[in-house]
Amino acid sequence: MRCEVVAIGTELLLGQIVDTNSSWIGEQLALAGIDSLYQTKVGDNFDRMVSTIRHALERSDAVICCGGLGPTQDDITREVIAHIMGVPLERDETIVQKIRDYFEGRGRPMAENNKRQADIPVGASIIAQMPGTAPGLVAPVGNKVIYATPGVPREMHEMMLGTILPDLQRRSGLASVIRSRVIRTWGNSESGLAEVLADRITELDAIGNPTLAFQASGIEGIKVRITAKTGDEATAQKILNEEEARIRALLGDIIFGLDEESMETVVLKRLRARGMTLAAAEAITGGVLAERMSTLDPAMAVFRGAMISARFDDTAAYGKSGADRAGKSARFAREEFGTDIGIAVNLAQDGEGERLNTAFLHISTKDHEYGMATTLPGDRYRLRTFGVIELLNYLRKTLDAQ
Amino acid sequence: MRCEVVAIGTELLLGQIVDTNSSWIGEQLALAGIDSLYQTKVGDNFDRMVSTIRHALERSDAVICCGGLGPTQDDITREVIAHIMGVPLERDETIVQKIRDYFEGRGRPMAENNKRQADIPVGASIIAQMPGTAPGLVAPVGNKVIYATPGVPREMHEMMLGTILPDLQRRSGLASVIRSRVIRTWGNSESGLAEVLADRITELDAIGNPTLAFQASGIEGIKVRITAKTGDEATAQKILNEEEARIRALLGDIIFGLDEESMETVVLKRLRARGMTLAAAEAITGGVLAERMSTLDPAMAVFRGAMISARFDDTAAYGKSGADRAGKSARFAREEFGTDIGIAVNLAQDGEGERLNTAFLHISTKDHEYGMATTLPGDRYRLRTFGVIELLNYLRKTLDAQ
Repeated sequence: MRCEVVAIGTELLLGQIVDTNSSWIGEQLALAGIDSLYQTKVGDNFDRMVSTIRHALERSDAVICCGGLGPTQDDITREVIAHIMGVPLERDETIVQKIRDYFEGRGRPMAENNKRQADIPVGASIIAQMPGTAPGLVAPVGNKVIYATPGVPREMHEMMLGTILPDLQRRSGLASVIRSRVIRTWGNSESGLAEVLADRITELDAIGNPTLAFQASGIEGIKVRITAKTGDEATAQKILNEEEARIRALLGDIIFGLDEESMETVVLKRLRARGMTLAAAEAITGGVLAERMSTLDPAMAVFRGAMISARFDDTAAYGKSGADRAGKSARFAREEFGTDIGIAVNLAQDGEGERLNTAFLHISTKDHEYGMATTLPGDRYRLRTFGVIELLNYLRKTLDAQ
Repeated sequence: MRCEVVAIGTELLLGQIVDTNSSWIGEQLALAGIDSLYQTKVGDNFDRMVSTIRHALERSDAVICCGGLGPTQDDITREVIAHIMGVPLERDETIVQKIRDYFEGRGRPMAENNKRQADIPVGASIIAQMPGTAPGLVAPVGNKVIYATPGVPREMHEMMLGTILPDLQRRSGLASVIRSRVIRTWGNSESGLAEVLADRITELDAIGNPTLAFQASGIEGIKVRITAKTGDEATAQKILNEEEARIRALLGDIIFGLDEESMETVVLKRLRARGMTLAAAEAITGGVLAERMSTLDPAMAVFRGAMISARFDDTAAYGKSGADRAGKSARFAREEFGTDIGIAVNLAQDGEGERLNTAFLHISTKDHEYGMATTLPGDRYRLRTFGVIELLNYLRKTLDAQ
């Protein structure tokens, strides 16, 4: 069963709106075990919409069209689908009444052009879910099918989950369950991971299930995705658990979390479990650490705060080496905020005999001081973000080692 | 001149990554006066990539492929382009050396499979900009062209602006000059702006040039885009200048900047011009302000720093009203960092008799204290970001009024 997505709207091509609908639909299709091999964006143009949807129907069994069901002149998905089906549009008075009720329920009169939204291609059926004024469509074309949903994400989601996905699964007669797990790593490159996992990937290529894939997650490390395809939920989870254990054995402590966990999440979880509090002194990282930690701990119960200041780079006040400055500023943070742990990262300065972009990470506790050096990337954005993740990763490993 | 975008990567179809690259490219093409009528996402599959790019080349003059230039086995854009060109790949040793230098600059060895990134289709040329390890390509196919860039946005942007857009404009022999200017506003809604500008938009609809368009810029205010299409650069700039002056007269001080200027940029510019320094006390905004300001003032010469702490919400220490706490914490910041100005925003707490989400903005200087109240959105992310922009906007207006 192959299903394509066609996102409709000139504003999508012009970049005025990012097409998050196709991504969401793609994820839902994958989770439902339906292949989605192409996704296309096309503007509000009759001929181009017809040719795009026809082309999609040729190579797939189903097409989901998203957008172009509004009341204005440039909303022509209804007309395009009727043309492809070779049928006329017919106004559905039940839908006209539903739209009128919708507006009256909000104390507004229905505009005349909203009636256009009730024009349905003859032979198409209306999707039961209709949270807005645009009815969704299920339009059969031979033994294939076109679905149409509004571009409003909330309305589209409801129609996808309520009608389209179940209809696709019924059509495909799919029994299989597809489940994924993402293993998040920090400290090796995509190609480095590929080398470590090369033998296992070759084995899995022969077995065919589960599969492994790599994904660079922007600056936030590399993800390894395990995908299992099987008959039932319990077996899928068993396959994922076993594969996760194998990968953990191969990758060790560069694995920092699973699925949606970030470096901040896992550090906060560990600190919370130990009842410990944290504060930071930030110079080069300029508040990036505070912003990320306070996003996940808005009450600042575990992450108590940070001082952001260039003073920590002052060699007279904080020390003549990066290691000294990192240590003294981490202690400053711990004392200033009265926390169990203070952390800081400090960059080597010119004339200190260190390689360019050498950074010193420091963790200060009441009983111990921990420090290490690392190299950060050259450009400022990556330097700051890398510096924060490296520092949190060092804290994670230090906590785990105790 | 028609140019399509093909975004490559199975992770895009599966919704693991949202394809923001195509949106960004679409916007750049539109600004450059190049039509982009289709954008397609396709997975890392040889046959499907070949057919998608061929199909795009049939109906357009140029295709920009984004992604699939990495070092791993599933990165096959190089092979696909060579196949479409009907040529072999050849390893470019200069590029191998560049990649090796890249890794060595970061203190890491180059993995063997990174050499694949230096395999270039014979007859294609390499894009001069190469901020990462993946070289971009300009691959002629008859009188048409395929461009290939990495999927990493930063690398793609650099290649687009440095090579691809100029090359497209040269190929299209565009005689007309299309120039845009974006007027950035804060403090009115899109529909509110449309009302104020309604008469002028009607006038321009009749004249045809320049045109005005609105664009909600996520959380960062509404943009008004003036686009002038004319024969030469000087005339284009004259049209933009005149229209900007008209819009300034209509919108007044809700305009905070132009084009790429952010609220931080314009505040820093004003402070720098006056030789003044700034510090902040952050509670609810949790480092968002520090992060944004220090990004643009990395040396922290103007923005001297911030203290991030829940202490500023402490009613015993900082006052029994939001206005008191904002005032006292702004003064604390000014004194702690020894700056000319201290700023803070503080949220009303339960039982203080204020409407939900009332926030107090405060600016403290040696001679004057300035305070005002505003209402912030409910969800935390928007509350923090709005709070920071509102506070900076208040500082901008206060500085301008002096």
